[in-house]
Amino acid sequence: MVNFDDFLKLELRVGRVLGVEPHPDAEKLYILKVDIGTKTVQLVAGIKPFYAPADLEGKMIAVLVNLEPKHIRGLASEGMLLAASDKGNVSLLVPDKEVSPGSPIR
Amino acid sequence: MVNFDDFLKLELRVGRVLGVEPHPDAEKLYILKVDIGTKTVQLVAGIKPFYAPADLEGKMIAVLVNLEPKHIRGLASEGMLLAASDKGNVSLLVPDKEVSPGSPIR
Repeated sequence: MVNFDDFLKLELRVGRVLGVEPHPDAEKLYILKVDIGTKTVQLVAGIKPFYAPADLEGKMIAVLVNLEPKHIRGLASEGMLLAASDKGNVSLLVPDKEVSPGSPIR
Repeated sequence: MVNFDDFLKLELRVGRVLGVEPHPDAEKLYILKVDIGTKTVQLVAGIKPFYAPADLEGKMIAVLVNLEPKHIRGLASEGMLLAASDKGNVSLLVPDKEVSPGSPIR
């Protein structure tokens, strides 16, 4: 069990995908540029088998924006997108109405 | 900043809304019954100004399922749904593809 403070430590925001490139050295990874309202961040995400670039460009997604940056296959990832997994398929979490990039998620 | 372990403490899952009732004593609250795969939980959520019951019934939503239960206006809430806020509007987070109730979110 977690308490509400544990949840509030995580800064979740809506981001808009601005760009999508395949990772040069990893078959399943994309390098995404995502507008999170205050700035644009780079995310390295393993969703290439599940989404074409055209499905992602302009899409609003849910992003954990205050995750410690880490390197994934040599490239910096400054956050993590949220997605559901079901029997080997992956489904991004998206807002069901139009909201602005940077909108907080609670 | 948080690390990945902080995130993993939170158990986020897709839930399917099975039932929606207005809270008897609070104008903005719904009492939702939500199938989270292993069981059905009751959530008390302040989304009544933003969604009609018919918009919610059957909907797949994102739920923090291991939040300590608490009482909201006298009724137990066993988790929290995730939603984005933007200029006074509220938008639920939903998976963008069909997934099963209980599917884990990462």
